[in-house]
This record gives sequence, structure tokens and C-alpha cells, in this order.
Amino acid sequence: MMDYPLLLKSILYRAHTVFPEKEIVSRDYSGIFRYTYADLYKRVCRLAGALDRLGVQAGDKVGTFAWNNHRHLELYFAVPCSQRVLHTVNIRLFQEQLVYTINHAEDKVLFVDEDLVPIIEGIADQLPLVQAYVIMTDKDSLPDTTLKNVYLYEQLIADGPDVYEFPSFDENTPAIIGYTSATTGMPKGVVYTHRGLYLHCLTTLVGELGSDERDVTMPIVPMFHVNAWGRPFSDTWVGAKQVYPGSRPQPEDFCELIHNERVTFSAGVPTIWMGILNHVRANPGRYDFSCVRYFLSGGSALPASLTEAYEKELGVRLYQGYGQTETSPVTFVCFPKSSLDDLPESEKYRLRTKSGLLLPGLEMKIVNSEGREVAHDGKEMGELLLRGPWIINEYYKDPEKTKEAFADGWFRTGDIVTIDENGYLQVIDRTRDLIKSGGEWISSVDLENTIMAHPDVLEAAVIGIPSEKWQERPLACVVLKPEAKGRVKKEDILKFLEDKVAKWWIPDDVVFIDEIPKTSVGKFSKKTLREQYEQGKLIKFNDPHVPFRH
Amino acid sequence: MMDYPLLLKSILYRAHTVFPEKEIVSRDYSGIFRYTYADLYKRVCRLAGALDRLGVQAGDKVGTFAWNNHRHLELYFAVPCSQRVLHTVNIRLFQEQLVYTINHAEDKVLFVDEDLVPIIEGIADQLPLVQAYVIMTDKDSLPDTTLKNVYLYEQLIADGPDVYEFPSFDENTPAIIGYTSATTGMPKGVVYTHRGLYLHCLTTLVGELGSDERDVTMPIVPMFHVNAWGRPFSDTWVGAKQVYPGSRPQPEDFCELIHNERVTFSAGVPTIWMGILNHVRANPGRYDFSCVRYFLSGGSALPASLTEAYEKELGVRLYQGYGQTETSPVTFVCFPKSSLDDLPESEKYRLRTKSGLLLPGLEMKIVNSEGREVAHDGKEMGELLLRGPWIINEYYKDPEKTKEAFADGWFRTGDIVTIDENGYLQVIDRTRDLIKSGGEWISSVDLENTIMAHPDVLEAAVIGIPSEKWQERPLACVVLKPEAKGRVKKEDILKFLEDKVAKWWIPDDVVFIDEIPKTSVGKFSKKTLREQYEQGKLIKFNDPHVPFRH
Repeated sequence: MMDYPLLLKSILYRAHTVFPEKEIVSRDYSGIFRYTYADLYKRVCRLAGALDRLGVQAGDKVGTFAWNNHRHLELYFAVPCSQRVLHTVNIRLFQEQLVYTINHAEDKVLFVDEDLVPIIEGIADQLPLVQAYVIMTDKDSLPDTTLKNVYLYEQLIADGPDVYEFPSFDENTPAIIGYTSATTGMPKGVVYTHRGLYLHCLTTLVGELGSDERDVTMPIVPMFHVNAWGRPFSDTWVGAKQVYPGSRPQPEDFCELIHNERVTFSAGVPTIWMGILNHVRANPGRYDFSCVRYFLSGGSALPASLTEAYEKELGVRLYQGYGQTETSPVTFVCFPKSSLDDLPESEKYRLRTKSGLLLPGLEMKIVNSEGREVAHDGKEMGELLLRGPWIINEYYKDPEKTKEAFADGWFRTGDIVTIDENGYLQVIDRTRDLIKSGGEWISSVDLENTIMAHPDVLEAAVIGIPSEKWQERPLACVVLKPEAKGRVKKEDILKFLEDKVAKWWIPDDVVFIDEIPKTSVGKFSKKTLREQYEQGKLIKFNDPHVPFRH
Repeated sequence: MMDYPLLLKSILYRAHTVFPEKEIVSRDYSGIFRYTYADLYKRVCRLAGALDRLGVQAGDKVGTFAWNNHRHLELYFAVPCSQRVLHTVNIRLFQEQLVYTINHAEDKVLFVDEDLVPIIEGIADQLPLVQAYVIMTDKDSLPDTTLKNVYLYEQLIADGPDVYEFPSFDENTPAIIGYTSATTGMPKGVVYTHRGLYLHCLTTLVGELGSDERDVTMPIVPMFHVNAWGRPFSDTWVGAKQVYPGSRPQPEDFCELIHNERVTFSAGVPTIWMGILNHVRANPGRYDFSCVRYFLSGGSALPASLTEAYEKELGVRLYQGYGQTETSPVTFVCFPKSSLDDLPESEKYRLRTKSGLLLPGLEMKIVNSEGREVAHDGKEMGELLLRGPWIINEYYKDPEKTKEAFADGWFRTGDIVTIDENGYLQVIDRTRDLIKSGGEWISSVDLENTIMAHPDVLEAAVIGIPSEKWQERPLACVVLKPEAKGRVKKEDILKFLEDKVAKWWIPDDVVFIDEIPKTSVGKFSKKTLREQYEQGKLIKFNDPHVPFRH
């Protein structure tokens, strides 16, 4: 066979050669912007030429600080295809994390969306390596800014030829770098190679959950978050019409775009799906979602109730995927096997809460605390280990954290899971969030989901607190709905659990708090709750008679 | 990213891990045989162990001389996954070609289907390198045979453990070797690597024409012919139910299997589709094909009339793919783009006769006789060059033919094509079959198709014959339907063409013959016709007054 490298330029090549007429829609600052794949190609070529003129060398990092829009898509191709490395800076990081990641990656140029400029202005004096800023907007002049060496994106690419000779190079060359929102310490860098992204994006196009030329796709998951799960590459490859929701999109924006552009496929996290559902419920008859084939949910557990509401109220199938920043990210996708067609309806919705079936090309191993592989019975729990061509083998410039996360060529996901006889993975908990009680494991996630099914509960997080007798015992931290505050007591919560979980799972206590602390990407920060507990702060909003406090 | 090789064992791993319960159906000698992917895996492991015991080393060639059945599928995995090389010997080759290919590949063991043993017996004394023969049958004792060192497949794999540690190795390791049925000289060897097959088979699963877990697939295209277009690997990867039609299948067998097993997808050549159509027409009401999603046709041009008949009479969509032995084989697939939905019906059927759109991961170049790239206008003709990860870069042990077929890293397909503004490729002719007349090209294929539309014509082939004035001129070799013989004259054929092709395309003459000579895979052998013409033999069945003979 030919020695032909797997490079991202292959995706761009097919799109403009086979699908030049297909459309890309982008919610720009001044309104909806439309162009074709033929136009995309020309602008990508001009952008690559502009990077040449800016003096950005092969291997140099180019940062983006941007929403999901067509300029970001152009950067997805122009930067890696011209052998530079794209750093998709997570706009939701805290200030010190932003400074850390931009400096750690050594970004040389930073492309910034118009409305995000103030954030960068606030840290620019701490970014000594950034030599130029490029502001992404459809306005024809630069906004007032304190940034130095500033260019306007549209002016930058206005000149130069419409063609660019994208080089060929080793397929193991870095293409994109991203950072995980670590739960301890600073974010960890993850480098995606051309080969890894090529194989990940091709594989997520296979089978039940692939998109094709007839799809209209809208990635809701941010492009600064694990490459928007690879969708910008995958959907370009098959020539789908693509819709980018732009700056600070609200549920109404998503609903308008789905309705107007006839979106068939989208991908996002459960909180987004919940927001869209609530907006549709509040506006009966306003939106027609009959165009939708399915939506993909990931990032955190998908409640069965949400899946059911989508199917029954919107007529939309909501499927779940599973993955991590370290795994490009998709590794499992949950679709119902034909052999399970005869399951009762309630079981089918329960099946949808599982993480799903392993993608082609990957290998998994689920090992218990003694390192032995668990049975495929849906019961025995173990940590999920993964290996494959789009799983990282190190954290960028971080040998210590690399050592912790890998064992014998396997990536340790840190997720405790089961797998059933049909091959469906279920995530039980994060290793560090599992509660080890009397030699057994209690799933904090299961407990939380059960508590959150209480009609008066808005949010709930469960953490393990030290116990002399049992090693650890669960403590429930509960946020009540405003109207229930003062009325609902901790005894009500504990009673609610009685017939729903094993007796020894029932938390030793319940504390009512005003809000669950969140990480920069919106996940429950149990680390913060554990710290607050250790510092005696968790009693702050609590019933003064809670016995466990000291 | 992990340094994780792309190996075929990855396909087997997913199938038995994720889809252990899914079914494989095989038309065996004594009836329909059924088992699961879990069973397949165990038997593949035992087969690999048996090859160890037979002393077959890494890199050794293992030949198969077999139909499409489950034992052949087991060999597809056991041989390459254990680092040996599978040689799928083409059972339709002529005797001297069989001897040549088996010796040229240096097959050490030959697996032979029960009913094909007599063919091998006839050449065994010319196969000095074959150390053992294994007979594939469900009978429990060896048939009478003159072969030496003979094993019974089922006895060979009866012993040994159900597990096998398939090794990891360089993804560029050879997995399968096949031979093209060359039109000149002996067949040419083509080696497929693990990486090449992995990427080919994964890519053919993408988009409109992919199969998935809910499919029931039946490869009609033989497993001894370009890996059955990769279907055994692709369909195993996604956990589809697979149906193998077994020994000497007739249209009735295909129809029974489609109807009984609820086949949703199949792949084969146009003559097979014609045979199935005729059988269904002859048995109205007997078969229900409503289960079929679509059939894929390839190997030779798909007539619009056949596509239309399938759609209108059987309710089945027939799509066309394009490729060569040298390209693994699939490189283009023809599906209707959404932007062409408004075409009139007749135009849609015409579109289906095109070779289609380039697959993800490949690059094409279409160059005219001066080496300049042609316009994408559906008119300008040029030779198709291809490159990509599943295109060969040499013929096995044949530097001379290798030199002819490659130029600057591109594979020269030898096909003269056009490409239109929508990216659809159309094959006009083989380079060597094009007729060069007065500095212009005449497509022999176009002329043949037009002549074959005459109601009295069974088959027609057009060749170029030398002309002092024009360089070459077309000669039509026509086979009339039995009832038309003697009645239809060459003037009738020429008149029929008058309003259908350009005047200068009209053949200088027509010869009526009894049959078009065919290659070993059933294609028109124009080489033979040209030789017959040169030897003055083409007049044999002809009107004695044809002026051009001499």
C-alpha cells in the first residue's frame, strides 16, 4: 500500500472537491451568515497564507478564544493543515487557569471573538509569549481595545491567494492541544495528532450514529471543549450542511436554528438539552422539530426522564455518548441493539442511561481493586481502562500526572463502571467520588440521581465523609427548590430514599445548601464540597442541629 | 496519542466483545448452518492454533480456494490476525493461471471447498510448495481424493483452546494477497496490508452506504474477488447479521436467502442483479424484498434500465460503486446528493449510471493526454489517477508492471473518465479500449451500450481497428438473439445508431459472432477480439462480403 499519511487536510480536500455547493450557516455578530464549502476552502487557504505572513512557524501554537462559528471552523483547518498546532482555549476557565494554559501551551498568536476581548484584555499583561491578537468579528473596524499588536480577522484574510499548498508530513504530528478542567491543580494539556483525530472522526461517522450528506448538523458542544467532539471535522468530511450557533447562544437561539435551518443532528451536554426542553415547553406550538433524526448527549449522565421527555414531547431521540478529554473524546455510544427491541418501554429508557457500546478500533479492560477483569454481568464493578489510536499516552509537559494516569500501556479513565452481557457500559462513579463503606462501594452518582428525583429538590451532590467504623459514610448536600425551603426537612429526604436504595446506602445525614459548587465547565465540584466539609463550612446553610458537625 | 497499530484483529475483538449474540448464517453443503459471533471467535482462535500446529510461520502464505461461507470467513480472520498472509485464490482462473498464482504467492497450505477439490487435484502435481491441503466441508469424513497430506477442516479445529493470543505487529504487515485477472500476460499480485484494509473497510462504513448493527448483509461478490469488497470485515465490525450464500449459488438461492433471512444489504456485479431480477420476474409473488435497504453494484457498468427495473419492479434501490483490485477495491460510490433531489426522474436514473463520489481519505487527479488536469464539467475526458492509504504502490514481485502503473506517487487506473461540477465521476472507457480516431476519442463502452439497446442484440463489443487515414476506426462485434439471426443485417445496426451517436462514431463495420469472448471473471475480452481480428478470424461467423477483412 502507498505510504500515505492520515492528515486533516484530507477532510478539507474532500469537502471542497466533492461538496463545493453545500452550505455552512453561522450566527455571526450582525446576523446569520451563509457560505459554501467552496468559500470555506478559499478562506482557509487565505488564512493559512496570513499565518505565513505573521511569521508563525511549523509547530508553533495558535490559540483560539472563541465560540462556535465559521471563523473558528476556518481555524480548525487552516492551523493544523499548515502544520501549526491549534490551541482551543477554554473560555470558561478561571483567570489564573487561562493565564496558565496560554503560557503553558506557548501560544504565539491568539484569535479572540469580539465579545470575549475584555477577558483577554484583563490578562494580556501576563501573556508574554503572545505576539499578536486577531479579533474575530464581522464589523469592518477594530473595536476599542487595550490589546497590543491587534489585527482584524477579515482584513487579515482579505489579501492573498485563494489557494494554499498544504504540506504533507508525519501523521503523528500534533494538530490540536486542549486542556482538561482538572479537579485538582492546574488543567492538564492533551495533544491530539492528525492521525488520532482522523481516526476518531472517521470512526464516529460509522454506523447508527454517523452523519451523512443529507444531514444538517449543529454542534452545540463548544469548539473549545474537546474539539466539539470532533463534529466540525466529521461533518465537513461527509459534506453535511453545518450550522454554528455563534456567541452566547441561549435555548431560544438553538430552537430557532433547529426550526429554521431544519437541523437533523446535534450534540451537547444534558443541561443544554434540559434548557431546550424547558424553552419548548414554555412556547408550545412555536417550534417544529420533525426534521431531527437524533441528538447526542454527553459530558455527564443522561437522566432517563430527559430521554423520555424528548421522545414523548418533542418526538426526538436523545442518545448518549461517553468519553474524556484524554480520549478525543468519544469511546462509547449508546444505541439500542436490535436484539433488545422486545424490552419493555421503561427498560428501553433505562438502557439509554447507560454509556453504551465500545466504538470500532478501541480496546477496553475493566479491572477490580485486585486488578482482575470483572465479569460482563452488569453487576461487578471495576475501573475502566482504555487503549486505542485516539487515546493519549501522556499529559503535555507533565511526566508526574502522566505516570499516575497510565498503566502497562492502558489509560486509566478513573471511572468505576459495570458492563453487561450485551456489551453496554454503565458508569457508576468517578474513582475518587465512590464512597467506600464497610468494604463495599456506594455510588455517589446513583444516590444523587435518586435524591434529585424528589419533586422538591433542585440539585444534590453526595460526598463521602470519614467514619471510624465504616471508613466512609455518605453525606447528602441538597439544594431545595425556592418554594420548598424551610418546608422540606432532612427526614423527608431520607424517608424518600428508603424504598429506593439499599438500607446501608442511605446517607448518614443531609445538609441543605444554597448551591452546589461547580467546576469551570459546570460539573459538580465535589472536591470543593469535601474541602468545605473539612473546614467546617458545610454547616453554613444548615439546620443547626445536624449531629455530624464538630 | 498511543502508538496503537491498525490491525484486523481489532475487528474481531469488537465483534465478539460487543456483539457476541449476533448471528452468522451460511449455506453449507448439507443445509443452512447458523452460529453466533461468540462461536465465530472461538473457531477463529482454534483455527489459528491449528495453523501453529501445521507449522505455518509468520509471513507464510495460506491459500483459500473457496466460496462465500463461514469457514472462509474464519480464514479471513485467523490467517492475517495470526500474522500469516491469506491468498484468496480466484477459483475462476484458467488452469495455468491457477498454477501460476499459487506458486507465485508461494502458498504453503491450501484450504479447498469440498466441491472444488477436483480442480485442485488436476493441478496438484504442479504445486511443489503446497505442504498440506485442508478440505472445507460439513461432512465428517474426507472425500476420496488423490491429494496428499490432506486434513479435514472440522477435525483440524476440533482440538485446541478456544482462545488465542493474537500478536501485535506493524500495521503495514501484509494481510491478504490477491491477483488481478490481467488482460495481458499472467495475473498480477496485489498485497493488502492490515492498515490498508482497516482504513478501506472503516471508510466504506461511513455515510449513506454504510451498514450497521440492524443490517442483515449478504456478500454476493465472491470472497476470492478483491476481499468481497471488504464486506466480511466491515459487516463483522458493526455486528451485522451476516448471510453467506455458499457453493455455486444460483439466482434462486440468493432470492430464497434474501426472503428468508430478511437481507437488508448486498453487494454484487450487474450480471448477478440481472439474474436475480429475471428469476423474480419468472416467479411473481414468491419473494418479499421489502426488507432490503439497498444493493450495491460494481465490477462493471450499471445500466440505467436495471436500476429502474429494480426500483419500479422490486422496490429496491440499486447503487453503484467503483474500484479496482489495486484499490482494495472501493474508491467511489454513487448516491444521489440532496442538492440533486429536484432532478427529473429520468435524470436520476442516468445519474445512477455514474461511478459516483470520491470516498473520504482518497485523492484523485484526472489528466488529459498532455498531463493537464481536466475541468470538472462532465465533458472533458482524462485518465483517472488515485492516491490514498488503501491504494497499492506496487505489483507483487513484478517491478516491470509496477513501473508502468505508477507515476509520481499516483496509481494510474487506466480508466478514461469525466467528472462533473457536482463531483460525480463517469468512466468513459479503459485507456486501451478507447478508439483514437482522427485525433479524437471514441468510447467503445458508449457504443456498446447503445448497440445493446437494440431489441435484437444480445451482446456487443466494439474494438478499434487500424486505419491509415484516421489511425483507428471502430468495429462492432455483435451477438444477435437466436430468433434474430439471419433476419437482422449490419445495415439495421448502423441505421439504429444514426440518431444516437455522433456521425463519426458510427462503426466502419459490424461483424456478427456467436459469442463475445470473456475473461476469467466474465468481462468482455476485447484483447481476444483484437487478436482474432489480427489473425483474420473475426470473419468466421460473418457476412462473407465484409469489405474490411483481409
